[in-house]
Amino acid sequence: MNFLAAARGETVERRPVWIMRQAGRYLPEYRAIREKVEFLELTRTPELAAEVTLQPIRRFGMDAAILFSDIMTPLEGMGIDVAFRGGPWIEDPIRSAGDVERITPLDPDAGVPFVLETIDRLVEALPHEVPVIGFAGAPFTLLCYLVDGHGTKSFVRTRAFLREEPAAAREALNRLAEGMATYLAAQARHGARALMLFDSWVGLLDRPTFREFERPAVEHILSSLRELDVPLLYFPNQGGHLLQEVAGVSADVIGVDWRIPLTEADRLLGSGRYTLQGNLDPSLLFAPGETLDAAVDRVIAEGSALPRGHIFNLGHGIDRSTDPDALARVVDRVHAAKV
Amino acid sequence: MNFLAAARGETVERRPVWIMRQAGRYLPEYRAIREKVEFLELTRTPELAAEVTLQPIRRFGMDAAILFSDIMTPLEGMGIDVAFRGGPWIEDPIRSAGDVERITPLDPDAGVPFVLETIDRLVEALPHEVPVIGFAGAPFTLLCYLVDGHGTKSFVRTRAFLREEPAAAREALNRLAEGMATYLAAQARHGARALMLFDSWVGLLDRPTFREFERPAVEHILSSLRELDVPLLYFPNQGGHLLQEVAGVSADVIGVDWRIPLTEADRLLGSGRYTLQGNLDPSLLFAPGETLDAAVDRVIAEGSALPRGHIFNLGHGIDRSTDPDALARVVDRVHAAKV
Repeated sequence: MNFLAAARGETVERRPVWIMRQAGRYLPEYRAIREKVEFLELTRTPELAAEVTLQPIRRFGMDAAILFSDIMTPLEGMGIDVAFRGGPWIEDPIRSAGDVERITPLDPDAGVPFVLETIDRLVEALPHEVPVIGFAGAPFTLLCYLVDGHGTKSFVRTRAFLREEPAAAREALNRLAEGMATYLAAQARHGARALMLFDSWVGLLDRPTFREFERPAVEHILSSLRELDVPLLYFPNQGGHLLQEVAGVSADVIGVDWRIPLTEADRLLGSGRYTLQGNLDPSLLFAPGETLDAAVDRVIAEGSALPRGHIFNLGHGIDRSTDPDALARVVDRVHAAKV
Repeated sequence: MNFLAAARGETVERRPVWIMRQAGRYLPEYRAIREKVEFLELTRTPELAAEVTLQPIRRFGMDAAILFSDIMTPLEGMGIDVAFRGGPWIEDPIRSAGDVERITPLDPDAGVPFVLETIDRLVEALPHEVPVIGFAGAPFTLLCYLVDGHGTKSFVRTRAFLREEPAAAREALNRLAEGMATYLAAQARHGARALMLFDSWVGLLDRPTFREFERPAVEHILSSLRELDVPLLYFPNQGGHLLQEVAGVSADVIGVDWRIPLTEADRLLGSGRYTLQGNLDPSLLFAPGETLDAAVDRVIAEGSALPRGHIFNLGHGIDRSTDPDALARVVDRVHAAKV
């Protein structure tokens, strides 16, 4: 239970570690399954989704198992058709105030039964010491795909939509926040013992825009989940410049990308307020062993200096061309380190 | 000459303004030319490249004319085949130490005669008060395209290359730095009165990696150009977290993206050391007029608080779907503001 203890700021016996996208293409056992089923089908087949969630736990012994799914998955239950073409793809994007009406409330039992069944299976399969992390996409990040229609470098249409139609954008973010709050609560009911909100694209916003649009939506989700007594994690990716504004959100853990040191993030967030999660640059997994070890030790040293606690992770999802043995080396080194 | 004066930290009569990608698809007169010629052909045809460079000057009255070209253009003269498929495309990317040998020195007269002729034409066509800004891509940004082969969200292969082959990566950055120093010096010889280095992807690096790989390469270029007595501009895009490390480079002007306030950038760079250029969020050009005006006024107020000087610009290139009238409104408002 080191992961949950660290998330709550309690003492741990060893430093917990898990890895963003730990279930994924860099693992041959994952690729073997993906040879047989498409990505979307995999996310919708509880037996297989549970299996790929468990693969990295078996191989590396991480301290938490993050549900295998996609941030766009619940939108299917909210009136939005999502395809997958190397990434999420919205055939009919949201471009007007009228389009926002298409975003409807989520009924998890009807909209995402396969996700809930995947969690049921995981709870049964995992040892008690390894909790399931449930997750959702944060509203602005979801809106990026809904408005631009697919991944882009800077989601210009979405950012323009915030300016052209601020009231409609706020309404869309509210609807997404409501849906994600419902979605995460359902995951917790089915046994997810921590809940994480991924804000992959929030780094595109400056502080006033974050404060005006995304922070209220994120806080709406987090504060509505507080009563569940489950640790809440928020990851404002590439959001080093936003941390002063993130400070105060109702989370237990803030994820930090690889661009700024953990100790600096802690200072910006109000020292000791949150457990921090991160933040090894995933590209370091391609370095020679000694370089990688030194980099891991640097993150551990930073983590040890944090007043509240540290959960080791990468500063971004693991890349598909990573050698699994490099990751094994990292996990073992973190576990062997003094806490 | 307000642009050059501001770059040098001297008094100006009115606040200079130019816009990144001011010659581009948002202008109907540009699209009219692009209907007849492909992008690469346009960059290689001095008469047309000069014409599109002049279009925004005629329409908006900016204080500087940036050469119409592409950061990849000089690489054709350095042994690298560059195609264009919506963005730069390298058919045969650099993936090993051996591949780095393919990057050869640049002879500007042989490799980029069309760029030099474009500048000749611009110098002749422009009034003396409107200087030509020459430019090049910074070494890490060029390396991103050379190694990954085309634009991606996070240039994973390039970042892995820095880790796997640090000596080869350094050699590639050196060769690119040598080439860009030669390229920029040639542009100045032909009449470019300011030189800008675009580091579009440097924000992917953390501080130690920037310090180890990119800063020395950037400084090599800048310091070699110092003797030309031409103002030097460096734009570390998305590099708010790097500004402490950027501090001290041999530039006159640092470009700031839209994510952090100009006054904060100035503090991080060592207050008053550089003139700052930026940093209106380009998405604000989609806002209603009064919202846009207020945002422009905020940037002007920030700029007025800078100890050394301010050149108004966007915090990133203007988007192709921008209404030219919104940009006219911005340029006029900047020019009308008290300095």
